[in-house]
Amino acid sequence: MSAKKAATIRSTSQQSSLFDAGGEPEPAAEPAAPARRPAAMRPVREDATSMAARQREISVSEFFTKNRHLLGFDNPQKAILTAIKEAVDNSLDACEEAEILPDLRIEVVETAENRYRIAVEDNGPGIVRKQVPKIFGQLLYGSKFHRLKQQRGQQGIGISAAGMYAQLTTGQPVEIVSKTGPKQPAHLFHISLDTRANAPLISRDDTVDWDRSHGTRVSMELEATYKKGRRSVDEYVAHTALANPHARIEFVAPKDEPVVYERVTHDLPREAREIQPHPYGIELGMLIQRMKETSQRTVRAALMSDFSRVSLTVAEQICDIAGVRPDGNPKRLTTPQVELLFRAIPKVKIMAPPTACLSPIGGELLQRGLERRITADFHTTVERPPAVYRGNPFLVEVGVAFGGGLAADEPAELYRFANRVPLQYQQSACAIAKSVIATDWKNYGLQQPRGAMPVGPLVVFVHVASVWVPFTSESKEAIASYPEIVREIRLALMEAGRRLGGFLRTRRRELDAARKKAYIEQYLPHIGDALQAILGMSDARRNETVENLKGILERGRARG
Amino acid sequence: MSAKKAATIRSTSQQSSLFDAGGEPEPAAEPAAPARRPAAMRPVREDATSMAARQREISVSEFFTKNRHLLGFDNPQKAILTAIKEAVDNSLDACEEAEILPDLRIEVVETAENRYRIAVEDNGPGIVRKQVPKIFGQLLYGSKFHRLKQQRGQQGIGISAAGMYAQLTTGQPVEIVSKTGPKQPAHLFHISLDTRANAPLISRDDTVDWDRSHGTRVSMELEATYKKGRRSVDEYVAHTALANPHARIEFVAPKDEPVVYERVTHDLPREAREIQPHPYGIELGMLIQRMKETSQRTVRAALMSDFSRVSLTVAEQICDIAGVRPDGNPKRLTTPQVELLFRAIPKVKIMAPPTACLSPIGGELLQRGLERRITADFHTTVERPPAVYRGNPFLVEVGVAFGGGLAADEPAELYRFANRVPLQYQQSACAIAKSVIATDWKNYGLQQPRGAMPVGPLVVFVHVASVWVPFTSESKEAIASYPEIVREIRLALMEAGRRLGGFLRTRRRELDAARKKAYIEQYLPHIGDALQAILGMSDARRNETVENLKGILERGRARG
Repeated sequence: MSAKKAATIRSTSQQSSLFDAGGEPEPAAEPAAPARRPAAMRPVREDATSMAARQREISVSEFFTKNRHLLGFDNPQKAILTAIKEAVDNSLDACEEAEILPDLRIEVVETAENRYRIAVEDNGPGIVRKQVPKIFGQLLYGSKFHRLKQQRGQQGIGISAAGMYAQLTTGQPVEIVSKTGPKQPAHLFHISLDTRANAPLISRDDTVDWDRSHGTRVSMELEATYKKGRRSVDEYVAHTALANPHARIEFVAPKDEPVVYERVTHDLPREAREIQPHPYGIELGMLIQRMKETSQRTVRAALMSDFSRVSLTVAEQICDIAGVRPDGNPKRLTTPQVELLFRAIPKVKIMAPPTACLSPIGGELLQRGLERRITADFHTTVERPPAVYRGNPFLVEVGVAFGGGLAADEPAELYRFANRVPLQYQQSACAIAKSVIATDWKNYGLQQPRGAMPVGPLVVFVHVASVWVPFTSESKEAIASYPEIVREIRLALMEAGRRLGGFLRTRRRELDAARKKAYIEQYLPHIGDALQAILGMSDARRNETVENLKGILERGRARG
Repeated sequence: MSAKKAATIRSTSQQSSLFDAGGEPEPAAEPAAPARRPAAMRPVREDATSMAARQREISVSEFFTKNRHLLGFDNPQKAILTAIKEAVDNSLDACEEAEILPDLRIEVVETAENRYRIAVEDNGPGIVRKQVPKIFGQLLYGSKFHRLKQQRGQQGIGISAAGMYAQLTTGQPVEIVSKTGPKQPAHLFHISLDTRANAPLISRDDTVDWDRSHGTRVSMELEATYKKGRRSVDEYVAHTALANPHARIEFVAPKDEPVVYERVTHDLPREAREIQPHPYGIELGMLIQRMKETSQRTVRAALMSDFSRVSLTVAEQICDIAGVRPDGNPKRLTTPQVELLFRAIPKVKIMAPPTACLSPIGGELLQRGLERRITADFHTTVERPPAVYRGNPFLVEVGVAFGGGLAADEPAELYRFANRVPLQYQQSACAIAKSVIATDWKNYGLQQPRGAMPVGPLVVFVHVASVWVPFTSESKEAIASYPEIVREIRLALMEAGRRLGGFLRTRRRELDAARKKAYIEQYLPHIGDALQAILGMSDARRNETVENLKGILERGRARG
């Protein structure tokens, strides 16, 4: 409150400082002086009491039903893609966590006009029976939200939101089959979501036989549009295979032969480890909360255990600068004391966060994947070292393919990925697209209209891996333009661009040379005949002279 | 489930179909065959049981703390704007609902480097004491979410999210003073948000004296950047005054004299009435839920009371086509039966939804506002009749100001509004900007680069009013491009453009004429002298001839 107005407000009594949730109704407020309003349209006038009667809680599922575009369910074409994506994200995350080479089957079956049943099946560790209903029938329930770790899912919303959309458009529950081991029974569930309560409703719960030894199968029927081409499910599956060379993916599209993407490697990716937040990236409110909730008994220990890279020395330096006792009880710190700690943190030199927590695709595997999936004359990949934004480690990988079967006069195709998940919408809002456009591709021998993608037979692949990818929206379609992220993408693109430029120069030189050679071979005999006529040479001398000339000219070509 | 796989899954026993929330722990799963992973980085391998142990609920406030960019709190400059906007939205909505001409005071006070205390004070109906903590200390609590009505707030998130951001960055609670009538005490609260529980924490709860007879004052201290210019708080306040000509707004910026925007009218806007959803705009899931929750005893009555424009005839036609008994109990309908009703709806002709529920600014008031706030040579406004998208009534108003003090060689300035709230971010993603760009302004005498805003001394004002504005994200910065909305905006822009074109043609003609006249006046005397010399005229005859010539030439000018 500003000083100006504060003077007119003063306490008259100290009432209870605890909120009386079940308190008596307020007396009706005095009516305020009404303003003029034409009599014909005068409604029942509201006051604080009548307005209070309408206040109520909104469940998170009601919120996201009304705002389902926030989760990627804006239209039927995007809805089917988002639903499959959420299921595949979960399958791949679970397989990796359990160290299983993923074996996925994705099915899309048309059941009626604008209605499809989708199914995603994996050989993952399965889901414990008790957890199934909440995972599929409750928004904001999951294991990934509170962990700083490179994983595909982040929030515990995706798959239950997909089920909610299915239910909203077809009234059908989600069907789940899950089995946790060869000697365990498979469980079959039909689950809907009670939108008002954000809670699962179970309409079927059986034990069934299943021929897999472990895994999960999710299927649901939803209103959708299925099309091939850009931003299609087909494109999504192909790109997923590209960014996950350790996965085998079988894809059954409506009215099509199944497509199988065999795995490129039998090695699992490096494990993505969970880390603590780095002190440089936190906010005051977060520090207050961590101090309140820590299991440690001293401020020093809390700082050391609950944050990355805080050694004993660092913890004591922070406490020293803040003037807070390092052996004090962290739960008893006052807000001003925590604020002193907060202000001390940037004054202490702290190592960058550990980056071994990241799990990139890897330059070599990416190269093999690109070569296998994209027919082109030139492929190159660049893997940048890990970097940090707002305390979060991240890493950029870039691949470029040029020539071959790619369209020559079109803008380059951009494949964007975050934590190995293809991003297909909102390209122009994404830091990746912005970085590609901001790179000067003319330097590397390509055409590029102002403020646009380079033009040519080019595919640009960019992968951003991070313990926390800063998406611009909950539908995870575009990455926010943090300067550190843009910088790393640009450096990787420039390196790939330089190599492409080298390739293009060499190729141009070879083309020039070939043209010159053809030219020499075409005209040299005529020159020989002319010289023979002028100088009265023998045929042998003429042929010798022509050979000599050819040698000299070709050496010149080789230099030029 | 597709037919192909279903064959391998069959029920072996019918277990309980109710979810056993407190069931016994699952037996540990059999380990799955491990994949190869380099020994050095082998972690503790996860299985379904170890993964289940980490599953937990995420509170909506934890979710939005981590994803605060979704709510408009991405950076310190936007955060202060969003916080003020949320408070002002609430103040204006409350005043209008209570039929009070709004009298607002907005203060921004710098308290430290990058730290400001903001306060928004109104003369509204106040808030009943019991409601204060939840309104300011709980996300997804409010009165507006479940009503189809033109209002500024929609979700019950905004002001508590602002408080959450304040708390996160400064650790300080939100301060609220509220008074519901002249004989009531004013209540003073300090409220924080328990992020884990999404529940209010009250640190102060007093009765105080306040010199207002009723109203609310909200203030909070937050980390922020305050700048003038585009997308500033100053611009926001000025635009809010423009779109709310019935409000008086006092604005106190740091280190500045207060600015007062006096009201342009003493009439309250037409009341925005709440409506029921229109049958053409609903989804199957929504119909299932409405039938389950209706207070009516027959299907017929439920359709009539819970939807817009469903007469007895319409309700019976729907039931008839669906083959559902109109006097059956709506709560007993099966999902397939509701689906039959759902499929019958589009086959019945139903009147468009009532549009009196909308509360536009009005052409005349908008015109007066534009003339008062924007110095220009030409102002015009267009109010389109109400239209409907996805069953939701909406209405478009457009204003154009040209010339005068506006910059001549810059792209036009676009003022975007939704339900009288200025939109300042994400212009390029907004249906309004897209519609302005898609309009061919060359037709109306302006320059316009391909795919860009027209260039010239031009302000374009567009207001979309609706019972449910389809924002592209929760931070309410851009309107989604529904074809019906784009169409209405374009029609309004074209009408305003034609009027502007008329004005520009007239002005050009007048300029041409003035130039011609100046030219005639400059050269005619010389021509007269030459004629006099050639034809040997007297001075009088010469003057007469010159006058005649002038008359003829000026008549020609008047025609041309």
